[in-house]
Amino acid sequence: MILTVDHGAVRELQLNRPPANALNWELMTELKHAVDNAPADGARAIVISGRPGMFSAGLDIPLLLTLDRNRIMDVWRCLYSLLGSLACSPIPICAAVTGHAPAGGTVLMIFCDWRIVPQGEWKIGLSEVQVGLPLPPVVFLALRRLVGPHRAQQLATLGLLMSSAEAVQVGLADEIVPPEQVVSCAVQWCEKLLALPQKAVSFTRREARADLAAIFRDDLDTEIAEIAAAWWEPEAQSVLHRVAERLTKRKA
Amino acid sequence: MILTVDHGAVRELQLNRPPANALNWELMTELKHAVDNAPADGARAIVISGRPGMFSAGLDIPLLLTLDRNRIMDVWRCLYSLLGSLACSPIPICAAVTGHAPAGGTVLMIFCDWRIVPQGEWKIGLSEVQVGLPLPPVVFLALRRLVGPHRAQQLATLGLLMSSAEAVQVGLADEIVPPEQVVSCAVQWCEKLLALPQKAVSFTRREARADLAAIFRDDLDTEIAEIAAAWWEPEAQSVLHRVAERLTKRKA
Amino acid sequence: MILTVDHGAVRELQLNRPPANALNWELMTELKHAVDNAPADGARAIVISGRPGMFSAGLDIPLLLTLDRNRIMDVWRCLYSLLGSLACSPIPICAAVTGHAPAGGTVLMIFCDWRIVPQGEWKIGLSEVQVGLPLPPVVFLALRRLVGPHRAQQLATLGLLMSSAEAVQVGLADEIVPPEQVVSCAVQWCEKLLALPQKAVSFTRREARADLAAIFRDDLDTEIAEIAAAWWEPEAQSVLHRVAERLTKRKA
Repeated sequence: MILTVDHGAVRELQLNRPPANALNWELMTELKHAVDNAPADGARAIVISGRPGMFSAGLDIPLLLTLDRNRIMDVWRCLYSLLGSLACSPIPICAAVTGHAPAGGTVLMIFCDWRIVPQGEWKIGLSEVQVGLPLPPVVFLALRRLVGPHRAQQLATLGLLMSSAEAVQVGLADEIVPPEQVVSCAVQWCEKLLALPQKAVSFTRREARADLAAIFRDDLDTEIAEIAAAWWEPEAQSVLHRVAERLTKRKA
Repeated sequence: MILTVDHGAVRELQLNRPPANALNWELMTELKHAVDNAPADGARAIVISGRPGMFSAGLDIPLLLTLDRNRIMDVWRCLYSLLGSLACSPIPICAAVTGHAPAGGTVLMIFCDWRIVPQGEWKIGLSEVQVGLPLPPVVFLALRRLVGPHRAQQLATLGLLMSSAEAVQVGLADEIVPPEQVVSCAVQWCEKLLALPQKAVSFTRREARADLAAIFRDDLDTEIAEIAAAWWEPEAQSVLHRVAERLTKRKA
Repeated sequence: MILTVDHGAVRELQLNRPPANALNWELMTELKHAVDNAPADGARAIVISGRPGMFSAGLDIPLLLTLDRNRIMDVWRCLYSLLGSLACSPIPICAAVTGHAPAGGTVLMIFCDWRIVPQGEWKIGLSEVQVGLPLPPVVFLALRRLVGPHRAQQLATLGLLMSSAEAVQVGLADEIVPPEQVVSCAVQWCEKLLALPQKAVSFTRREARADLAAIFRDDLDTEIAEIAAAWWEPEAQSVLHRVAERLTKRKA
């Protein structure tokens, strides 16, 4: 589910679960291991990319609706574990957002070091509340770090989806380029960083991301249990089933 | 001193202490109780509005200058208690800033979830230092959350008053609309939030405002005593008496 | 190495170590004492200025490369002590950036209350990583306070140098004026603050800078030792020697 392309010392990890790169336990686990293993393989920076037109549609809601309580808990544990790997990565990670990135798609982006989004009408944003789910607190903290406490409150509580250009304007993304240049610009961003004295950059980067890494030093079991429980709320179940029906109809 | 207007599930609390909605113990106590009681009455969101052309002129300085030390302490306790209710409200609050909102007027605004200000030459800003009073630390923390540490230092130490448009530009306010639309836009902002899945929004909003609510979990008695003591500083008394004289002359 | 010019209650401290105001132990020690002693001498605000066209080029790398481990440690201790004096100054400090301010030049700026930069193609930015040095954590915290966590990560890890106009745009500087007006505007900024009720301003300013001052309440010995050790890394030594050679050639 992950295609690996090495551009010199920059390793591209391409999400490849057609059609929408929807996040399930397997995709998230593979991505986590790919991120964790990259430095030992000699990679000095990572680009996470998606498929043309689709970075990731977020959690695979129709699939998740077939799971029992234990498996849902596993999915959330798996997501938190992946986010911890992104936040604590010893080498820089650039998100090459190749298309839509609603909800979980944006979640992956905001734990990276840098975000490049494509020109055009792509949907980006933490739309969790719109599908009946609370935004996980660790995700809120990463969002707040990017856009400040007040803007984070606005984006999270309204579950706003927006275009790439708006995402750059509010601080959810850093650069906007033509869609076909997203990956190459992400590789270039990494190369620019790798051209600098590496000891100095690594130390400085670790300090600069210490607040993000610190989120994952706490015991997050209680938080994960709370977020997993929210999945089973009648309100959430009702909205999620409506979303799943809409997705099924669209496919047909 | 508070007029209540229910717009469906949105309760408007209209400050009504002519001519300037100057804050005294009674107005602040009534507003606090109205905010505290709204959820039990079935309100799902609150709009705090003022009179046309005047949201609130802030503390009633001429009146406060007639009070003794115990009563001044009561006034500050009462303000802190009101701010705690705004910060910790379980339902969202939108400030419909219907006109001028200097000093205490802006203080009320910045503890709300969202701020809509009127087009035109209205005075907004935390001008406390200009009347000889320090900005209370809890107010500074709420300001810093909105505009960041450096801008907060600038606004607070200079006691800058500004127009509505400038308030939006620096982040003290969120939206600017024609004066006659301030209240209806505030109601609409609440309705937009209420149209979303409520469990998910409530959880997400509580997390997003946890930092603001946390300010009021500390014991603030020492801080309140310090701020109340500042009222009696010779410098403050001299500036406050000059301000009161100017207000009396303007009335005559 | 410091010229003192009193403009009424505003004391200007002019860095004067030709040609580049490069920071050595003596200059930093003199500046620290001048800042510490200003209030007792009756100064109510401080302006730190440089030479025309050069605020400060940062650490005197060619000189530092001649020092042994103990002396290098002394230099970093001295810098930290100076930054602590700037951060904790009981009276406001305005940086009058009279020209280039790379690396250590920008470090001095960001611990001041306000920063005025000159129009034109001057170099500003925390370029430490470009000369092989990590950005000291205390400096990162001061930067983060000014520009937010994400922008701070970007500026620090890339060691970006920029023009005055860009510095204002990203929040590294506050005002941009013609070069010959930098000092007078800095004096005016101080005078504006001094015209306000002083007790109220002092209290409010202390609260607003409490987070910056708090950095220096921790024991920073371990951090200083770590930063001093980074000087001796082979990577750093190799880059620093190349920088020193370039500077020597330019002089010749």
